[in-house]
Amino acid sequence: MIRNFKITLAYDGTRYSGWQKQGNTGNTIQGKLEKVISAMFGTAVEVQGSGRTDAGVHAAAQTANFKMDTKVSAAEICRYLRAYLPQDIGVLSVEEVDARFHARISAKQKTYRYRIWNSDVPNVFERKYLYLCPEPLDTAAMEACVPYFLGTHDFRAFCSNPDLKKSSVRTIYEMRLERLGPELRLTVTGSGFLYNMVRLIAGTLLEVGRGHLRPEEIPEILERQDRRRAGPMAPACGLCMMEVAYE
Amino acid sequence: MIRNFKITLAYDGTRYSGWQKQGNTGNTIQGKLEKVISAMFGTAVEVQGSGRTDAGVHAAAQTANFKMDTKVSAAEICRYLRAYLPQDIGVLSVEEVDARFHARISAKQKTYRYRIWNSDVPNVFERKYLYLCPEPLDTAAMEACVPYFLGTHDFRAFCSNPDLKKSSVRTIYEMRLERLGPELRLTVTGSGFLYNMVRLIAGTLLEVGRGHLRPEEIPEILERQDRRRAGPMAPACGLCMMEVAYE
Repeated sequence: MIRNFKITLAYDGTRYSGWQKQGNTGNTIQGKLEKVISAMFGTAVEVQGSGRTDAGVHAAAQTANFKMDTKVSAAEICRYLRAYLPQDIGVLSVEEVDARFHARISAKQKTYRYRIWNSDVPNVFERKYLYLCPEPLDTAAMEACVPYFLGTHDFRAFCSNPDLKKSSVRTIYEMRLERLGPELRLTVTGSGFLYNMVRLIAGTLLEVGRGHLRPEEIPEILERQDRRRAGPMAPACGLCMMEVAYE
Repeated sequence: MIRNFKITLAYDGTRYSGWQKQGNTGNTIQGKLEKVISAMFGTAVEVQGSGRTDAGVHAAAQTANFKMDTKVSAAEICRYLRAYLPQDIGVLSVEEVDARFHARISAKQKTYRYRIWNSDVPNVFERKYLYLCPEPLDTAAMEACVPYFLGTHDFRAFCSNPDLKKSSVRTIYEMRLERLGPELRLTVTGSGFLYNMVRLIAGTLLEVGRGHLRPEEIPEILERQDRRRAGPMAPACGLCMMEVAYE
């Protein structure tokens, strides 16, 4: 019987070329995962992720699924993956799911977090998961931007792919900017995200924080759908995929 | 005028051969620090640490001091160190202190923490700062050991140096074993610590947790001063120097 397995995994993206495998080149999470699962079953296995993460981006809970005609239990697959995956890719759980479950298509919403270390006092232990920005930031102005992003918009101005043929309309359900001591933490939950969308939103908020852009300009940037008017893309290391929610 | 500077620094000890410089060999924290300070002042500078940390051991707040005939301010030294030290050594502060201050001799007490990840669910983001111990541990038995260590004892059984000539009497002021979800965290504050003392205490508690030793055996181990009766040394990666307290 063909069974469908859902994997929830965390990874430190620092030394990877992102989620998606790239032929035989590139050190990718999907590539590592498929290699270990294929070795376990002695046959080529394709793994579907909930979505790509860029080179250097982390995940606290990325999801993926694969189908296999096997009697092996989800618990055994979990143990095997934990034993053979490198230490910077951690399998949180493996569960058997309905045949119709697809990690990407079944996803209802995703949450990403962007972490900014806004201090000149170094944070050695979390340095790989933070974007270091020691200069003062006007957090009140950054917070004033949040309401403009909430809801359903055409986010074409916040997408790195200029040739996008599909719809660039997305819904942001929740967006929070919190200060935890020296850390500024942006958490965004949405129906889905365009290529580099969270990093472009974070980069735009940083431009506002630096006084190079006013919060009131956000609606116009969204409306004009002009990528060049938004801020530069914030570095990959600060971004982490936090959750993928299903029905 | 010769001035005395106190440095408080954090480091990820993973890729270092410990605090203490070893001639021209070894990649050490003291060596890195002295190299950058010597380059700043154009003369060989010796830095005194509050104590050595072993290869692979981390520090959230190690302290050190050095003397220099200079007009350069503590803030300027701090900026220079932050600019030239590698990302896994972070200077938290530099302050000018009294000429009599000596990072090691003036220290009144030190706090160390040993972190055990007691779960088979991996922790990818903190993996370098934890000792992974997935098997079940009897935490109640481990906690029952704590009172035996408190107070003043001859800790020769918990010292890796069999030829120690000096006194091996130390005082433990505080010792706590906490469970934070999958993490077991041992925090010890004492007048000072012998070579590998905290890792040997942690290793002994782990032996108790695994049922290989009973809590009631601790007083006898301390009394007989026999290193072989204590547990094996817990791995370096789980240990972190948390604080050095002065008058």
